[in-house]
Amino acid sequence: MSRTAVANLLRVSAVSLARAPTVAPRPLLSAVRSLHASAATMAPRKRKVFTYENLNPHVKQAEYAVRGELAIRAEALRKTLDSDQASTLSFDKIVNCNIGNPQQLGQQPITFLRQVSSLLEYPALLDDRNREATLKLFPADAIDRAKDMSKAIGSLGAYSHSMGIPAIRNSVAKFMEERDGFPANPDHIFLTAGASPGVQTILQALIAHDQVGVLVPIPQYPLYTAAISLCNGRAVPYYLDEEGAWTMRADEVRRAIAEARNGGTDVRALCVINPGNPTGNVLSKTDMEAIIKLCHKEGLLLMADEVYQTNVYYPKEQPWYSFKHVLCSMGGDVAKEVELVSFHSISKGMIGECGRRGGYFEVVNVDPRTIEELYKIASISLCPNVQGQVAVDIMVNPPQPGSESYDLYNTEMTHLYESLKRRAEKVAAALNQLEGVQCNRADGAMYLFPKITLPQRAIEAAEEAGKEADAFYTLALLDATGVCTVPGSGFLQRPGTFHFRSTFLPPEDELDGFIARLSKFHKEFFDKYRG
Amino acid sequence: MSRTAVANLLRVSAVSLARAPTVAPRPLLSAVRSLHASAATMAPRKRKVFTYENLNPHVKQAEYAVRGELAIRAEALRKTLDSDQASTLSFDKIVNCNIGNPQQLGQQPITFLRQVSSLLEYPALLDDRNREATLKLFPADAIDRAKDMSKAIGSLGAYSHSMGIPAIRNSVAKFMEERDGFPANPDHIFLTAGASPGVQTILQALIAHDQVGVLVPIPQYPLYTAAISLCNGRAVPYYLDEEGAWTMRADEVRRAIAEARNGGTDVRALCVINPGNPTGNVLSKTDMEAIIKLCHKEGLLLMADEVYQTNVYYPKEQPWYSFKHVLCSMGGDVAKEVELVSFHSISKGMIGECGRRGGYFEVVNVDPRTIEELYKIASISLCPNVQGQVAVDIMVNPPQPGSESYDLYNTEMTHLYESLKRRAEKVAAALNQLEGVQCNRADGAMYLFPKITLPQRAIEAAEEAGKEADAFYTLALLDATGVCTVPGSGFLQRPGTFHFRSTFLPPEDELDGFIARLSKFHKEFFDKYRG
Repeated sequence: MSRTAVANLLRVSAVSLARAPTVAPRPLLSAVRSLHASAATMAPRKRKVFTYENLNPHVKQAEYAVRGELAIRAEALRKTLDSDQASTLSFDKIVNCNIGNPQQLGQQPITFLRQVSSLLEYPALLDDRNREATLKLFPADAIDRAKDMSKAIGSLGAYSHSMGIPAIRNSVAKFMEERDGFPANPDHIFLTAGASPGVQTILQALIAHDQVGVLVPIPQYPLYTAAISLCNGRAVPYYLDEEGAWTMRADEVRRAIAEARNGGTDVRALCVINPGNPTGNVLSKTDMEAIIKLCHKEGLLLMADEVYQTNVYYPKEQPWYSFKHVLCSMGGDVAKEVELVSFHSISKGMIGECGRRGGYFEVVNVDPRTIEELYKIASISLCPNVQGQVAVDIMVNPPQPGSESYDLYNTEMTHLYESLKRRAEKVAAALNQLEGVQCNRADGAMYLFPKITLPQRAIEAAEEAGKEADAFYTLALLDATGVCTVPGSGFLQRPGTFHFRSTFLPPEDELDGFIARLSKFHKEFFDKYRG
Repeated sequence: MSRTAVANLLRVSAVSLARAPTVAPRPLLSAVRSLHASAATMAPRKRKVFTYENLNPHVKQAEYAVRGELAIRAEALRKTLDSDQASTLSFDKIVNCNIGNPQQLGQQPITFLRQVSSLLEYPALLDDRNREATLKLFPADAIDRAKDMSKAIGSLGAYSHSMGIPAIRNSVAKFMEERDGFPANPDHIFLTAGASPGVQTILQALIAHDQVGVLVPIPQYPLYTAAISLCNGRAVPYYLDEEGAWTMRADEVRRAIAEARNGGTDVRALCVINPGNPTGNVLSKTDMEAIIKLCHKEGLLLMADEVYQTNVYYPKEQPWYSFKHVLCSMGGDVAKEVELVSFHSISKGMIGECGRRGGYFEVVNVDPRTIEELYKIASISLCPNVQGQVAVDIMVNPPQPGSESYDLYNTEMTHLYESLKRRAEKVAAALNQLEGVQCNRADGAMYLFPKITLPQRAIEAAEEAGKEADAFYTLALLDATGVCTVPGSGFLQRPGTFHFRSTFLPPEDELDGFIARLSKFHKEFFDKYRG
């Protein structure tokens, strides 16, 4: 390797590298020692270096409320519940409605997915000599599927291709082609450990300097502002229309762009979450077309977070379309030119395999050399975990009608879907019964984001406590009931308004109790602060 | 949320946020449109934005040779082998010695680990009604272990604590206490998706500005320079002593620090890989003490990459010690003050579960507020995949003597260990037989890093081809034999020297053929260029 190449890589001068002694001869060693002494004099150092004061300011600045103050307080309360101090609390368990984590709240996994995963883990189960015993525990089509996948994957314990196993990227491409009616290229698909690392990879590549701006919806899922902050970029807020069922308006996005560009921000991307998190909104095709046109005109990368694409509860009234489908349907220059990255995940939908960490993103109309750079970033962390990749394959290629496992699969999916819809409706209705609370219906996703008009005295009490008023409310809710939610301030919201986000994931047989505890707390809180 | 708080989070002015209209009244809308028009005029934009030219320069600058040019070429050759063009190649398979990926080369997984993982995947297997059938396929102690873990974990499909499942962090702490003879705090342990993301998290927090320097060994595992580049820091090279079996010398580190500080670099951390990658060196306790003292005096965070801690082939001659053990043994201010982060992984050792992505790091003597920030970064990506965490638990708490699974476990581990040692010795001996090749013994890890003195004409031919000479050699090796290695230039090396890294992981029954192909190629290459 040439000295200059080494120096470039290391960002030090070639001269200084060339100077490095193999085995330092005496005179050089003393020179080095005196250099060192003078450096120490020039820059005396404290003993500790990895202190909070010294940390990367962009790390310190990042905020992630879903696992913020409330989640930490909930953890402490859980420890209390496990201790001999449990009787000091007025509840007997923590209900984590702060995060879309269905299996934590008792949702059962999809059986076929777990059967195939289990078979792949232990190769002896795929050995024909054990077939009789294995068939007592697993259906034949799960065994066949695991055998096919085993051939395509090799060992589950080997690093895969950094973009993901080629056969699984083929499955994803086929799934998208069937979903969208347009071609998908497996070499433009990256498997990831969930949507979050995918979003972070794209932002890391995109944010080239500290004036790069990325449009984020308000309210937003805080991954976006956190990741933008980590990359030292600028989040450019656009407001969703609460009165219009939280849809997004191209005019409002234009306002945000104009204002940001006038302020010196180099706006380069637009993040859209559809179905919305925390809002539950499902975008209309007309709104999506307006957004795509806007991206075309303004030169914006469209980042489409579509992880809730199967959590769509009124598909006739409010059908969900992928941005890929709408983009390709528009044809012409727009279809050929608008750069799109769309994200999907195994954590949501009816699959709900959050802990497994799997997902993917597809890039459309993106510079091939950019794709190479994304591949390089992926390769630095070697590969997404293979079990997460396996689950992506099963998500996009589930048991088909006629197969042995289809009926159970279909029953599980339908049951869960209908249950989620019933829960969404029931919790929203209950929230709308509460004084000062207005809650839009969840057309999609797993959350409700009610607006809460708090009594003036509660706002003042919050100020005295040094808290945002909705954080004050949700902390009181947690302390009184064990129900952990996230204050609207964690997602950002219009100044002067207050909200909170709650999943509607508690099990159906616990829902009445959940609602009763919430309602009782709410009434007592309002009685206390109504003045 | 207050306007100022929102504005701080978004890095825009509170005034501009306050101005955002709920539903824009007409006059404001026209004002917005004219604003927008003027912004567009001020900054006319190209349609494409996510182009290579526009990307984050630190991303472009990062290099990761383990999956670089050679690996990409190997991928292309593999596609040719799968096509009807296979006969154009003089070999029938690619042997990936570019990466420590043992199960890809046929290494069998540790049975107990896979049994427990398999049982955890499919809850029906833990159901007592299926016990009889399950016992035909799994030993009772694996079932018991899976049941215990299932209780501690809950569902495998739920997000865990972002630092990792508390019970598994307890297991890790216990393991380290037994290994080191000093206490370990589970709340100072972060489970990760392999060592690589852990290293990246620490560097992201550490590198506060573009003058922060991190000392890296040369040769190094290129994760370090790549991650430092992504974080826009400065890699500060210190040379390992090839003549001294690749050990590190405190004097050389001092030279590097002094030189970097004189050049305006704010040197804050020292990375050490022990056992060494790519060098195979195992540090002596004396050398480790000198390094720790140096960190104390110079105010450096010690980052100890200890992922090869069980790949130690001459434990009597060259025993391996953890930096935690040596640090704590030193006592006094040093033991209380030197900040240490040590990394471990399930990918190496005899476990070799690379694709599973699991590992952990422990922080010692680190500011509690820094730990909180590391927790926040972890929470932005939610959690490491749970199956990876499970494998960490089994790695640190394997079957014990007397248990049903112990004998098989012990046989598998011993067999693998002895086989790795035999292969290390055999490949090193073969390399040392080759003209112009000098190869240090691998005291540890999974690699050999021979120095190769290339004929002058080969160096000239490489220059003509625009390649580093060792890249030229290893590309020719790949094209002739299908053996994929990594040129020394990818790990960095003393200017004017050439090396390559090869794992010694090909299966033992293929090793003679592997060595014969390598030797034949080498002779032909030297014959061609000897001049």
